[in-house]
Amino acid sequence: MKDILALDVGGTHIRSAWVTDSGMRDDERVHADLRGLTTAAGAGAQEALLAALVQHIELRLEEGNAHAVALGMPGFIDRHGVIAASPNLPGISDFPLKRLLGERLTLPVTVANDALCAARGAWLLEDPRPPSLAMLTLGTGVGGGLVLDGRPVIGDGGTAMEIGHIPMVPKGHPCGCGKRGCLEQYASATALTRIDAEAGGPGRDARELAEAANSGEARAREIYQDAGRYLGLGVATLVQLVDVRTVRIGGGLTRSWNLLEPGLRSSLDENLIPPLRGKIDVAPVAPERIDQIALLGAADLACLDLI
Amino acid sequence: MKDILALDVGGTHIRSAWVTDSGMRDDERVHADLRGLTTAAGAGAQEALLAALVQHIELRLEEGNAHAVALGMPGFIDRHGVIAASPNLPGISDFPLKRLLGERLTLPVTVANDALCAARGAWLLEDPRPPSLAMLTLGTGVGGGLVLDGRPVIGDGGTAMEIGHIPMVPKGHPCGCGKRGCLEQYASATALTRIDAEAGGPGRDARELAEAANSGEARAREIYQDAGRYLGLGVATLVQLVDVRTVRIGGGLTRSWNLLEPGLRSSLDENLIPPLRGKIDVAPVAPERIDQIALLGAADLACLDLI
Repeated sequence: MKDILALDVGGTHIRSAWVTDSGMRDDERVHADLRGLTTAAGAGAQEALLAALVQHIELRLEEGNAHAVALGMPGFIDRHGVIAASPNLPGISDFPLKRLLGERLTLPVTVANDALCAARGAWLLEDPRPPSLAMLTLGTGVGGGLVLDGRPVIGDGGTAMEIGHIPMVPKGHPCGCGKRGCLEQYASATALTRIDAEAGGPGRDARELAEAANSGEARAREIYQDAGRYLGLGVATLVQLVDVRTVRIGGGLTRSWNLLEPGLRSSLDENLIPPLRGKIDVAPVAPERIDQIALLGAADLACLDLI
Repeated sequence: MKDILALDVGGTHIRSAWVTDSGMRDDERVHADLRGLTTAAGAGAQEALLAALVQHIELRLEEGNAHAVALGMPGFIDRHGVIAASPNLPGISDFPLKRLLGERLTLPVTVANDALCAARGAWLLEDPRPPSLAMLTLGTGVGGGLVLDGRPVIGDGGTAMEIGHIPMVPKGHPCGCGKRGCLEQYASATALTRIDAEAGGPGRDARELAEAANSGEARAREIYQDAGRYLGLGVATLVQLVDVRTVRIGGGLTRSWNLLEPGLRSSLDENLIPPLRGKIDVAPVAPERIDQIALLGAADLACLDLI
């Protein structure tokens, strides 16, 4: 791998690292506060985001000679690096970020969905490397990325692995996407808080609920178990559609893997055709490793020159 | 494409055709009755199937010089051409058909899932050719095949696109696979008959139900509409996982496309995230064309030399 400056861009931050043949050249991250920049609507938000990215990248390029710049970002990003929409970056739509950054930096630029970057990075780090790997990220929503037969799945229009929005519960809870009953309404951190409140609880956040569950509170345990069961159902659906047998779970909720795992595993097995039962390798990725994995995956996607 | 002898093997038949650069060299099919051969259990059924295939193929090879032999068959078939199991071919399990046929014929042999062959053939015939295409086949069960970014999706273990077995209805109707509530229990020809009987009807077959529906019978129309709605839900799930935007529906039930289509389209749209709505090209493949399409696809898979 050539020297690549990889960025992980979120709703409120930019993290970056140099990725080289020997792995991360540093694990020092530069953080930048994006809040305020992307809350302005329309072209203003897009210009502000572009300016913040250029500023950050140019600063880091003073440290070395990059062959390419790779960005992982939330949202629907097609293979031309156009961000169609990004729920976590309000005001950004149909934004040709790859082209605009390329013009400003005069360097090859890759822009890819952040969960796809995480899937790619996790796949690279597996030993032995499996043919395929799916990554689910559990945070405020449920995201996903897929590597199939060694190739990243981008989708015809850049919306592959929107597993957070597969239908789970007919006429279920309204989702931010405009539909009802999506997986992320039952298996994200946000969902746990809502479900706690609906069950008469104080609407505790995922960490408070985990503390209660680990202290033996039955309701809190059940909320995590149900979330695990919905995840198992989602993973079983995915596995039966693409026959991916290595599944990694990332994101903040994996801090409570002990609480999610039993429901996830039993529901996964129940919802798989018998020849697939017991054949799916599901494991969490530690929350403190997922950012680095996504940066590594972004850099590798830049090398593939697909997007 | 070199000259390839392509076979479509089902529970009761073998069909075959020569496929060349200029398409099908003939559309004459040789039918053979496999009934009785594959009903014996265990090694006997496997030996009988192998013998029937060798006999058929050797007869047809007298007509020309084949570069390869390509078989499309129902069942879970891995990339080494081992049939792990085949619900429509009882007695066949962990059967290394590709290797055994290759030894007997001293020719390259490809063995692939029949719905994958149909997906590949349909993808080849599209003009312009889309990046990806999914095929669903509606018959006694619901099968599927997927071409993603121009490549056939086989899956880590050969069970990709088991869309007939994705979970649809919690604690739903028992499925032949051993689970409950699978899609094929709500959207196959077999399902329609059962649902008619459950609703107090005489348990009519798909054709009788279609006649009744087209004559204005409300219950028969509703049975088709509900099947269409379940299909739409399944397609929406698939689309949100791999972002395939070209979907073809094959199999006997497409004779009643007029009855399936309204439920399918409305349910598909309702269950897609808004950016995907109206962007999925769904169309039926005429039942009389699907066999030829599968033979063409099998031949092309042989050329790819992936399986």
